[in-house]
Amino acid sequence: MSDKSVFDSSDSVRHAKPLPYAQHVTFDGPFHLECGRHLPSVTVAHETYGTLSPARDNAVLLCHAISGDSHVARHDAEDDPGWWDIAVGPGKPIDTDRYFVICPNILGGCRGTTGPVSVNPATGGAYGPDFPLVTIGDIVKLQRQLVKHLGIERLLAVVGGSLGGQMAMTWATRYPDELAGCAAIATSPRLTSQALAFDVVGRNAILHDPDYDAGRYYDHGPGPKVGLAIARMLGHITYLSRESMMRKFDANRFTPRDIATQFETKFSIGSYLAYQGDRFGERFDANSYITLSMAMDLFDLGATPEELAESLRPSTCRWLVISYTSDWLFPPFQSQQIVDALVAEDKAVSYCNVQSSCGHDAFLLPNELASYGTLIAGFLANLNEASKLPPVQRLAGAAASDASAPVSPLPREHAAHRPTSIFHDPQRLDYDSIVELIPPGASVLDLGCGSGELLSQLRQRDHARLVGIELDESAVVACVQRGLDVLQADLNEGLSLFADGEFDVVALSQTLQTIIDVRRVIQEMLRVGRQAIVSFPNLGYHKLRRQLAEEGRAPLVSLGGGSRWYDTWNVRFLTIADFDEFCRDEGIRIHDRVFLDTEARRRVTDDPNLNADLAILVLSR
Amino acid sequence: MSDKSVFDSSDSVRHAKPLPYAQHVTFDGPFHLECGRHLPSVTVAHETYGTLSPARDNAVLLCHAISGDSHVARHDAEDDPGWWDIAVGPGKPIDTDRYFVICPNILGGCRGTTGPVSVNPATGGAYGPDFPLVTIGDIVKLQRQLVKHLGIERLLAVVGGSLGGQMAMTWATRYPDELAGCAAIATSPRLTSQALAFDVVGRNAILHDPDYDAGRYYDHGPGPKVGLAIARMLGHITYLSRESMMRKFDANRFTPRDIATQFETKFSIGSYLAYQGDRFGERFDANSYITLSMAMDLFDLGATPEELAESLRPSTCRWLVISYTSDWLFPPFQSQQIVDALVAEDKAVSYCNVQSSCGHDAFLLPNELASYGTLIAGFLANLNEASKLPPVQRLAGAAASDASAPVSPLPREHAAHRPTSIFHDPQRLDYDSIVELIPPGASVLDLGCGSGELLSQLRQRDHARLVGIELDESAVVACVQRGLDVLQADLNEGLSLFADGEFDVVALSQTLQTIIDVRRVIQEMLRVGRQAIVSFPNLGYHKLRRQLAEEGRAPLVSLGGGSRWYDTWNVRFLTIADFDEFCRDEGIRIHDRVFLDTEARRRVTDDPNLNADLAILVLSR
Repeated sequence: MSDKSVFDSSDSVRHAKPLPYAQHVTFDGPFHLECGRHLPSVTVAHETYGTLSPARDNAVLLCHAISGDSHVARHDAEDDPGWWDIAVGPGKPIDTDRYFVICPNILGGCRGTTGPVSVNPATGGAYGPDFPLVTIGDIVKLQRQLVKHLGIERLLAVVGGSLGGQMAMTWATRYPDELAGCAAIATSPRLTSQALAFDVVGRNAILHDPDYDAGRYYDHGPGPKVGLAIARMLGHITYLSRESMMRKFDANRFTPRDIATQFETKFSIGSYLAYQGDRFGERFDANSYITLSMAMDLFDLGATPEELAESLRPSTCRWLVISYTSDWLFPPFQSQQIVDALVAEDKAVSYCNVQSSCGHDAFLLPNELASYGTLIAGFLANLNEASKLPPVQRLAGAAASDASAPVSPLPREHAAHRPTSIFHDPQRLDYDSIVELIPPGASVLDLGCGSGELLSQLRQRDHARLVGIELDESAVVACVQRGLDVLQADLNEGLSLFADGEFDVVALSQTLQTIIDVRRVIQEMLRVGRQAIVSFPNLGYHKLRRQLAEEGRAPLVSLGGGSRWYDTWNVRFLTIADFDEFCRDEGIRIHDRVFLDTEARRRVTDDPNLNADLAILVLSR
Repeated sequence: MSDKSVFDSSDSVRHAKPLPYAQHVTFDGPFHLECGRHLPSVTVAHETYGTLSPARDNAVLLCHAISGDSHVARHDAEDDPGWWDIAVGPGKPIDTDRYFVICPNILGGCRGTTGPVSVNPATGGAYGPDFPLVTIGDIVKLQRQLVKHLGIERLLAVVGGSLGGQMAMTWATRYPDELAGCAAIATSPRLTSQALAFDVVGRNAILHDPDYDAGRYYDHGPGPKVGLAIARMLGHITYLSRESMMRKFDANRFTPRDIATQFETKFSIGSYLAYQGDRFGERFDANSYITLSMAMDLFDLGATPEELAESLRPSTCRWLVISYTSDWLFPPFQSQQIVDALVAEDKAVSYCNVQSSCGHDAFLLPNELASYGTLIAGFLANLNEASKLPPVQRLAGAAASDASAPVSPLPREHAAHRPTSIFHDPQRLDYDSIVELIPPGASVLDLGCGSGELLSQLRQRDHARLVGIELDESAVVACVQRGLDVLQADLNEGLSLFADGEFDVVALSQTLQTIIDVRRVIQEMLRVGRQAIVSFPNLGYHKLRRQLAEEGRAPLVSLGGGSRWYDTWNVRFLTIADFDEFCRDEGIRIHDRVFLDTEARRRVTDDPNLNADLAILVLSR
């Protein structure tokens, strides 16, 4: 192993601007690849930011996407911004004042790390088409060699989007003891056939460009500029969403930018694509593009949920999975497959499907940084702290539940569970009762967890596993900031991601009455949990009965949010007697009951269907 | 004009199998094009099916998509099936026992109609790249010349999907008096920038194939097979949905079909695309592909709703617009733009967004034929009959409303409005009351119109305009079968497609209580209609009050569907008093009130909030 760079980028990377801050490490001796071949030596170009802590426990590895490189962010005010400058730097989500950030160019790339443009010692010329088939596993193996070379035994986190997300997942599963957290962004267990199809067409365009010359174009001619440009145009279409393209090009579709290009420029989208295609040909190598797109296409964590779960089983780190609603290249359902499999394997995972109209590119753009940047920052901040949290003795209804949360108090708009509670105390009365009903040490799934108030309260005690489900994006972000495991999901779509009996307790606090398909949700709760705890407003409460019987008005069930018949979040109205009958009909046992008169702030034992406005029930099959 | 074919397809259409049933008509003399150039003569290859009626009023013109031709269906048992064999033939949706069907190959095509492969009289060789720029308007102009040549002054309908839909719309707007109906299927006012981008990349691939040879490839070499194949591969990806590709290729992605091709076949999707690309090169001409894709890309009915409305303004025919939920090349929102503009211009239009997972290709596939085929059949069947319907004298509550409907009684599953009514009579009591409340001659919009029961009743009278809105696909199909104008839409998404005061009356019968955002819907009704008629179940009904007050049970509002608190379609619960207050708060005037005890089948005048189970109110601002 040597630090001297044997890789002379100036003569083999064509046209590519040198990266002034890149450092090069060369590992001599054979580097064995999964395809059975080996490289006699490998060089890794990489850049670092921030300072490695004395304990060497603050290193974050960033994995770039197909056209990226080691220059993730600027090193100083004069430096060029990098490909993720918005997310990496002092005070930014990946805070280089706090973390030691490493970003290597990946194996098979063309910006300093060994790839098809590198010199093949056997011939003295570029590898070109003789460069062996490289997998994501090979790429990660080389990253790991670099990390070890830098003196780091365990990374705080590996973070990557798209192709980089495939690397992050590979880290988590191949080297589980060597990272505390894995952030897999806008990625998938394997490409959809649609995404694969675009890559196939792109490669066909390159390979059939006569200037490709069977890949041996380095010593003569321009190389397959047309084919590479066409592949890049195609790629660009898939990185944007239909909506973002419309925003960008629809208003002036017939007024293309006047650029010098050999490609069609009749439409503005055409001149944009031509420009992107031409520029890509100047900075990227076609063999490298083929190598990396093939590595991406061959990546495969499994075709079935079972295979995917098996692939992810070895991982021990915490996970953050982020998708973007308008990403159709790595569509959200694929991130959800990853999350489902992680959940099936009892891994600690948070998931957010960030609302965005920017398509796959969203993870590189500033538009939704407030969400995904805050998620990443919150995830990283809690990776070490979470494990350091002292186990607190059981404190039913502790008043200062937030005090031990690792991050600063939440902004006001995150503090309330939606639908809004009528309880004005920061501490909800029913949370206290629910906490008391949950056996110590039990694993708990909190449905509609909001910003994590109940889970934060439970965290004071010694619980096996605490997971929240929440639909609202900002509440999900708030949970991640608190260091909680939260999954963004719509309860109306069921709990299919959880196995039978996966939790001791599944809680649904004042949310039942806002769900259309109550029966299915209760069935799911009792499938997933050994016990279910449900709280709901009682329509049988005497004041409500009086409103209808005497005043002829729809009862105003203010519990659960909304104040009038036409704007309440509630869509289901039931009495305690109705729920009792429902349980009888469904064969559900009621183990325990707490009835509250929340106005009077007291428990009710006498005729609760008349005297209680809130019911809390513990159910099982 | 002459019937002899001067176009010898065998020597200029390369590899293309001759179409044995195609007839050729040649129009001598200059054919002027919108680009300013002209063709000295034009030939149209076309096929016909069925028999022209003595009144010459049963002709249906079919417009094919980019790779189609005149052979839409088989002519006899030995004949090859055509590109829409499932939809065209005896007893099929476009019934050749009933209609005289004409399908011409389009101008610029390569299957017999004048195009780049045709002989340029000026040179004696093929036009090739000298073939002039052709627009959809030019294509339609030539179709019209053929139609006139066949002795038809007015078409019953023009039907087309995709590129063919652009032609159908052009017919309706350019020659409004010459067609009774326009069926525009899986099409758009103009391509999205995303769809445009795919065409641009495809053309770039063809134009940069060295075998394209500036378009003069006919006399030597193979032509741009690679470029054309790449364009076709791309096209194929956009014709399928992600889901249909997954179904087809995901299970065995690494076991490609073993085919002889020069393209990548590593993945099964790759071998499929290679096969499609290769076959296309054998049967299609590259210059023709460029010509037709450019015609499609230049088609533009306007960038804004106002421009689109202006484009559609001249049309006088009835419209049927069909989109497919998974079509991302011509996405449903674009069909909805067409519908919005037609509605804004007071045109008679029905719209259905057919649930499908097959993508753009859905309109050519059998999967959803039961929906879209039935829509087309119902639309065609009512084009002549509708205008023949005698204006019937006013008959409030006529018992046999269906008797005069032009098509056979609806199947049982279409007969009920969802949510199910409690009224077991075919004739709903509240419909009678609503009919009585609607002034004769008024234009009426019926929200949640189901299978069109109320509208069918109203059709007995002399109403200016009757339009229904319905979400359920099978109910929409049933309405079209009845010859009603119906638009598939979700009331929760508002009525933005209608202008202020567009209707005299907007009716919402027993649907209010199933809508989450009641306030917005009522506001919208009163914006769109001068009056609104609303019927809803009254929670204040004495039996319901007693259920809660005495039995401690949630009142069972059976009106509106569903039977239990957890499975009712109702999500809003209100008394007449609540609605009165709502109207006061919102500044809404109540003009007229009808209160019913539907069990007793009588009107209620005494304390309706206690004694009526159903309220019908006439509202205005």
